[in-house]
Amino acid sequence: MMFNTKKITLVGLMTGLITGGAILPAQAAVDSEVAFILNSLLFLIGGFLVMWMAAGFCMLEAGLVRTKNVATMCLKNISLYAIAGILYFLIGYNLMYSGVDGGFIGSLSLWSASETAAQEAVKLDGGYASASDWFFQMVFVATAASIVSGTLAERIKLFPFLAFVVVLTGFIYPIQGAWTWGAGWLSAAGFSDFAGSTIVHSVGGWAALTGAIILGARQGKYSPTGQVRPIPGSSLTLATLGTFILWLGWFGFNGASQLALGSAIDAVAVSQIFANTNMAAAGGVVAALALTKLLYKKVDLTMVLNGALAGLVSITAEPLTPTIGQAILIGAVGGALVVFTVPLLDKFKIDDVVGAIPVHLICGIWGTLAVPLTNDGASFVTQVMGVAAIGAFVAATSIVMWMLLKYTVGIRVSAEDESRGGDLAELGMEAYPEFGHGSQKI
Amino acid sequence: MMFNTKKITLVGLMTGLITGGAILPAQAAVDSEVAFILNSLLFLIGGFLVMWMAAGFCMLEAGLVRTKNVATMCLKNISLYAIAGILYFLIGYNLMYSGVDGGFIGSLSLWSASETAAQEAVKLDGGYASASDWFFQMVFVATAASIVSGTLAERIKLFPFLAFVVVLTGFIYPIQGAWTWGAGWLSAAGFSDFAGSTIVHSVGGWAALTGAIILGARQGKYSPTGQVRPIPGSSLTLATLGTFILWLGWFGFNGASQLALGSAIDAVAVSQIFANTNMAAAGGVVAALALTKLLYKKVDLTMVLNGALAGLVSITAEPLTPTIGQAILIGAVGGALVVFTVPLLDKFKIDDVVGAIPVHLICGIWGTLAVPLTNDGASFVTQVMGVAAIGAFVAATSIVMWMLLKYTVGIRVSAEDESRGGDLAELGMEAYPEFGHGSQKI
Amino acid sequence: MMFNTKKITLVGLMTGLITGGAILPAQAAVDSEVAFILNSLLFLIGGFLVMWMAAGFCMLEAGLVRTKNVATMCLKNISLYAIAGILYFLIGYNLMYSGVDGGFIGSLSLWSASETAAQEAVKLDGGYASASDWFFQMVFVATAASIVSGTLAERIKLFPFLAFVVVLTGFIYPIQGAWTWGAGWLSAAGFSDFAGSTIVHSVGGWAALTGAIILGARQGKYSPTGQVRPIPGSSLTLATLGTFILWLGWFGFNGASQLALGSAIDAVAVSQIFANTNMAAAGGVVAALALTKLLYKKVDLTMVLNGALAGLVSITAEPLTPTIGQAILIGAVGGALVVFTVPLLDKFKIDDVVGAIPVHLICGIWGTLAVPLTNDGASFVTQVMGVAAIGAFVAATSIVMWMLLKYTVGIRVSAEDESRGGDLAELGMEAYPEFGHGSQKI
Repeated sequence: MMFNTKKITLVGLMTGLITGGAILPAQAAVDSEVAFILNSLLFLIGGFLVMWMAAGFCMLEAGLVRTKNVATMCLKNISLYAIAGILYFLIGYNLMYSGVDGGFIGSLSLWSASETAAQEAVKLDGGYASASDWFFQMVFVATAASIVSGTLAERIKLFPFLAFVVVLTGFIYPIQGAWTWGAGWLSAAGFSDFAGSTIVHSVGGWAALTGAIILGARQGKYSPTGQVRPIPGSSLTLATLGTFILWLGWFGFNGASQLALGSAIDAVAVSQIFANTNMAAAGGVVAALALTKLLYKKVDLTMVLNGALAGLVSITAEPLTPTIGQAILIGAVGGALVVFTVPLLDKFKIDDVVGAIPVHLICGIWGTLAVPLTNDGASFVTQVMGVAAIGAFVAATSIVMWMLLKYTVGIRVSAEDESRGGDLAELGMEAYPEFGHGSQKI
Repeated sequence: MMFNTKKITLVGLMTGLITGGAILPAQAAVDSEVAFILNSLLFLIGGFLVMWMAAGFCMLEAGLVRTKNVATMCLKNISLYAIAGILYFLIGYNLMYSGVDGGFIGSLSLWSASETAAQEAVKLDGGYASASDWFFQMVFVATAASIVSGTLAERIKLFPFLAFVVVLTGFIYPIQGAWTWGAGWLSAAGFSDFAGSTIVHSVGGWAALTGAIILGARQGKYSPTGQVRPIPGSSLTLATLGTFILWLGWFGFNGASQLALGSAIDAVAVSQIFANTNMAAAGGVVAALALTKLLYKKVDLTMVLNGALAGLVSITAEPLTPTIGQAILIGAVGGALVVFTVPLLDKFKIDDVVGAIPVHLICGIWGTLAVPLTNDGASFVTQVMGVAAIGAFVAATSIVMWMLLKYTVGIRVSAEDESRGGDLAELGMEAYPEFGHGSQKI
Repeated sequence: MMFNTKKITLVGLMTGLITGGAILPAQAAVDSEVAFILNSLLFLIGGFLVMWMAAGFCMLEAGLVRTKNVATMCLKNISLYAIAGILYFLIGYNLMYSGVDGGFIGSLSLWSASETAAQEAVKLDGGYASASDWFFQMVFVATAASIVSGTLAERIKLFPFLAFVVVLTGFIYPIQGAWTWGAGWLSAAGFSDFAGSTIVHSVGGWAALTGAIILGARQGKYSPTGQVRPIPGSSLTLATLGTFILWLGWFGFNGASQLALGSAIDAVAVSQIFANTNMAAAGGVVAALALTKLLYKKVDLTMVLNGALAGLVSITAEPLTPTIGQAILIGAVGGALVVFTVPLLDKFKIDDVVGAIPVHLICGIWGTLAVPLTNDGASFVTQVMGVAAIGAFVAATSIVMWMLLKYTVGIRVSAEDESRGGDLAELGMEAYPEFGHGSQKI
């Protein structure tokens, strides 16, 4: 098992918090085997909660596309989750965590627990079961890929999209991940991103943004005269369900990123993270609720849902050091950013079907830059550097991949297939074959 | 961190159970830091399960209203969850838990962990991370608010409803909560409500009942000649999903109300609570299934779903002391009560869209009165007193609030808007824009 | 609390793994009360995750039947979960676990914790709270019943189906369960089925297969000239949601079947099981994705969903000993088996509405036979014997029950009711009353 910088950062932070003197002995009181079990358990609980986020993205995105693309959306989501895991096993995990050592990239080899279970368990100094850590890291990479599928929905070809997922989860995500969490150069430089506002969410966001520009908007979204046509999603209940699922999963995403539950300090930290994560989302909801009412006279449910997610992304870079009041504000700023950024994207004719770019890219950046506001260990300059370096790398590699795919196999379905919808064109089935067509069928 | 009576009650109970002699040393065997971690972990797991109940209420209610009000229902549910958390942080938690000391109300101040994480962690005698307890208590208040939204659906105005939520979660709920769980006068009097049949569920139920009377029934629900028109919900699958979510979340609701997992006695108690909670719900299902078949010749799915919830509410006041057989019976009585109470409400022309009053108010009372049947530490007279005192307080304050709102901003949408549905009127969107209208469109 | 063979098998296995020498002392380091708590906690977490699978089956099956049978499907699923628990309490648990002792059947008596909570907690040598174990075992039996409801959907009568559930969960499942997990003759013979590929999934599969044959196909599914008419389900989003729920729940199903978390060895084992379970499902997804694209030119979403479930069933008999690479392969073979078996069933005119027979029976057998590939403690011959013995017993008793029901109360709805759909015929309601009828209404 490799060196894990998230953990290191935290211990540093905690040491920073302990200004009263001889406190660490309290930690030593927990038997090392019990700590090993509790640390592993945190990864497992966090891991299954983050796995559940895959269902959340699926429901959110299926609810926000039109019926003719719903089955395709479901297929993409379950497939990308499967592919992300396999690629992370085959390549990604070791690229990210094995022997990075202050550098830019790890080793290219298959992940496997190097010891038998019994051998590993005896060496309690590892701190946790290596498979529990692997499981937790693996579900993170799937999250990054899920973000992309929403933005590019309704016009991207299925298999080229999955090919991009292969590259994103096998190479792009783990390489930049190695820089910080794999103890690479950004970690050495002091970049701080607790659970991945930048490393996970903005990565998905950059891949989505470059894809949206290269792929172009959906038919009829922007008229030649510059008008924007709203294209409402097929099921706001599913979109709401997806948002609640994501909110639930985020307790694992942020909470288990504490990476340890073997001491009272860890328990206090995980608890604070749970409370802050929840309240940032609450702040995002209320901000979006109030702003859409004020700006548009009517409350916009999809904006409120994205407000919740915006709050969650915003708090992800630093869910531990803010007070609850600060967490609410950080989340509320995120919610406001979404309300103001969604129309901005339309101005540039960037067609983001589910609003993933405002939520994951813009709020991912905001959350990362907000870290120094509450965490004295972080510097604004380093945060900007991290955001910029990761952004440049992911945008550049994504552009190369999208272009490569575009000029070889093609990434966009035919105009006719787009009009029929992906479900009939690529799957030959309908998501809701028995439901008649309402007035807004488009 | 304040004194927590739920805990005290339990220790008393357990001491009561231990009639064999020198048993407590076994408890002392767990290292205090390990107990601290495990106690906090129970709150966190219980907390995320109860948070998930917000999604359950949302799906249940969205499935039981007509399509034209579905998006509004989703909006209300996610908004009230966010608002409940913020109000509980700003006001409610301290009102409920800070310095109640046998009295009627706590202090009015912002909740915050008063120490740094490291300082708190070292003082292991607190027993658990204060933020974990806060998180767990916070999700409870949202539950009370969720109950109200279902009953009043399809005709209440959005913002006046949210204003009521502010008062309910910031003041009404925490003040009466202080009486028992905050170690106030009802606790001193011996009132016993383990996880909140009265303190959470009947509170929501009273607020809903008073609201339903003051708001009036939906257009066309009751004809002038006294006939009741059934208004079927838009999606029984979502209603079923919501019920399953609530059932799952209830393991956290009741199980983590044990408030500790730091000893074998606690582990045994939480386990018994899980089993009893599940089996009470099972009893409610079977009772509703059998009764609707016998009474109406056809099984009524919505009644069976409410039967499950009725069983869950009924066991909530005392999920620990019953045997599994007793839990099944307690739940089955709850299920039967729902089958008989739903038509009764219609007789009084009280329009409860989702059946929340029978489930949460009637069964909340039933469950609370049933405590002495299995728990020798509770007295029937005190239980009646608690139910009555809390009922009187919540009903009175709710009536004042509903009236205040009614005669200032108004609480009911216009007849025209009610006919169009909240989605178009208040949100300007449809939940299912592409689905055509079936024969029962109303 | 009875002797539990799953546990025994594991300890044996672990001892087998420990070839390096004096390792067990490390285990002894965990205080027995802490181990008691952690073991119980694993059962509770695993238990609520498996309970959640009931919702998964419900959504999967509701999504794969036509709208006219959706409410009935929901009703069956929530009812069977309730009934399974009650029967397991009344009869099943003791039949399965009480005094089997190398034989064929346990005792016929009500389950109850034989001691007060406090008494039990003091005797830490039990290893875990008996109610936590009971809860975990109880949710398993519901899983077996859920499998049957899917296959027989859209034409079986409600109450005869529930009568079959009573017998399945009260007698058939626990009797065969006693043979292995209750320390009966199959356990003595060395049969190895870690979490129930055979004992749970194939049991449901045999009950479903015999039922499907005796019940016959749905109207119009097979034309007299031998053509197969596809009958698409009503909601592929709900089917996808159900699959994600099942995938999530499976971490509890397999992970908590380790039956202990009180040592580092257990923590390592549970972690490996989580990782393997996830990756087998991923393997199933990719296999079904690739194969349906290759064979049919279009990707079939329902096949991909069943591919995920196939991977999960396949790894269930042995989720611990494979490496992650092996787990992917075991799951992929399962996914391929589903793709090839679904058309085969149609050849025999066996109408399996949701594909449960390929997934749970075929892959359940495959997974069980694959155990010796990675677990040296299992023999292929014994595995075949176990599969055959359990298959013969369950098929025979199921046939008797189906025939008994068929020739007394009848098991098939009238042709007219089948045409109207179960929702109007048996429940008098519609799942989606407001959604119009699309072109494929059948």
